[in-house]
Amino acid sequence: MPPAADLGRALVIITGASRGFGRAVAQDVSRAVRPGSALVLAARSGKELRALREELTESEAGRAGLKVEVVTADVGRTEDLEDLLRRSEQVFTEDMDHLVLVNNAASLGDVSRYTRDFTDPGEVDSYLSLNVSSALCLTARVLRAFPQRAGLRRTVVNVSSLCALQPFPSWVLYCTGKAARDMAFRVLAEEEPDLRVLSYAPGPLDTSMQVEARSNTADPKLKKTISDLSAQNQLLSCEESCSKLMKVLLEDRFTSGAHIDVFDV
Amino acid sequence: MPPAADLGRALVIITGASRGFGRAVAQDVSRAVRPGSALVLAARSGKELRALREELTESEAGRAGLKVEVVTADVGRTEDLEDLLRRSEQVFTEDMDHLVLVNNAASLGDVSRYTRDFTDPGEVDSYLSLNVSSALCLTARVLRAFPQRAGLRRTVVNVSSLCALQPFPSWVLYCTGKAARDMAFRVLAEEEPDLRVLSYAPGPLDTSMQVEARSNTADPKLKKTISDLSAQNQLLSCEESCSKLMKVLLEDRFTSGAHIDVFDV
Repeated sequence: MPPAADLGRALVIITGASRGFGRAVAQDVSRAVRPGSALVLAARSGKELRALREELTESEAGRAGLKVEVVTADVGRTEDLEDLLRRSEQVFTEDMDHLVLVNNAASLGDVSRYTRDFTDPGEVDSYLSLNVSSALCLTARVLRAFPQRAGLRRTVVNVSSLCALQPFPSWVLYCTGKAARDMAFRVLAEEEPDLRVLSYAPGPLDTSMQVEARSNTADPKLKKTISDLSAQNQLLSCEESCSKLMKVLLEDRFTSGAHIDVFDV
Repeated sequence: MPPAADLGRALVIITGASRGFGRAVAQDVSRAVRPGSALVLAARSGKELRALREELTESEAGRAGLKVEVVTADVGRTEDLEDLLRRSEQVFTEDMDHLVLVNNAASLGDVSRYTRDFTDPGEVDSYLSLNVSSALCLTARVLRAFPQRAGLRRTVVNVSSLCALQPFPSWVLYCTGKAARDMAFRVLAEEEPDLRVLSYAPGPLDTSMQVEARSNTADPKLKKTISDLSAQNQLLSCEESCSKLMKVLLEDRFTSGAHIDVFDV
């Protein structure tokens, strides 16, 4: 089966879109959707988001009529979730044939300490709220706002990590959050057979999160491994990894709920 | 290697000890420790806990000097965690050679709805706080209170579930929480080579949680499967499953961090 040439006339919602991988997804998606599509880009930083909107609006897709909405939102806050939903409903049009949600927003958590150092439930609660509850509840709200109907494909992407599958010492928050997310989206895939659910692990990316990991990781062996990836130019660019994600989405042959790693594409 | 005959002169901390599997663990452990040991049993319900203390104090182990402390505690509350730790430190004696923590407390979560119905981040946050953060932070506090030293074995048990590995429709909270816990304890096992970390899935047990699952599960196929288990007498008793856990702990041959299912023992 040859891959579809594009994602259709789509509404695409992307969280954490202002920087890094989320930004690359927004750029790639803008080129992969048909005229009449809309992007809703959410992030906590308004300034970078507005710069991205400007870039996309002036691009070929933008000149051909792609709508780009930006929402300054902390997806961990209910009011902001509501705002993001309202703005998404405003730009949705009945002739759209594809809904895509990319749950990308995430934080690394404090990797400078070991599990035995996480004695404060409030700290773990905050991490899980931002990295698990928010993705789950945003997904639920989007699915309710845009329910199953004839002629509308619906795709939900969970930006995952190798850390969802393998334990990394001193990364307890990140690993726990990513494992939790993968499972939540596997349950969703079981429940909603019409949905296309993908957990995509983008690989070690050349992003600010990687710099944070390189600087702060407590476990010396893991810290060296991460530093070596960078020193030996083995980090992937966001664009490179994102093009693999686009390939998977366009080919549309993955098992719904599957965890797919960039190195398997 | 023949299994050890007992768990040694141990301090054993068990959460969710008032009923079901936690209660069975307390009973079995009381018979598997040497004189001079102490049990610290935590649960939210004081009445059932006190009845259990009475039972254990009057048992053969109790008459031989086993100390049984009960702590009415909600492990999701920091003050209660602190109280549990204080009481544990009070009953610990320098001649103890084994520290055992059994993270058993858990809730099923609302299984009457599907993932698309979980639109409220506060609800998901509360669930993850009680079922993930509390177990992680209690473990951290216990490990800090009783650090590694010569002559002290340390074992941490995470009461897990098949749901940590497999998605069950309409059980998104339970599956997500159990997957998160398994990963947190895998990370812990990587970090602390002296520790023995076990995620034990006790199987479908004849408990009040099972009744709750049977009554409330939204997914009709899963609901039927659960009801059939009960109707066909295929539920395990807590005692039966607990004896398998004791076998694993006494043999002490598991890979630290492993997930072991009752049906594999």
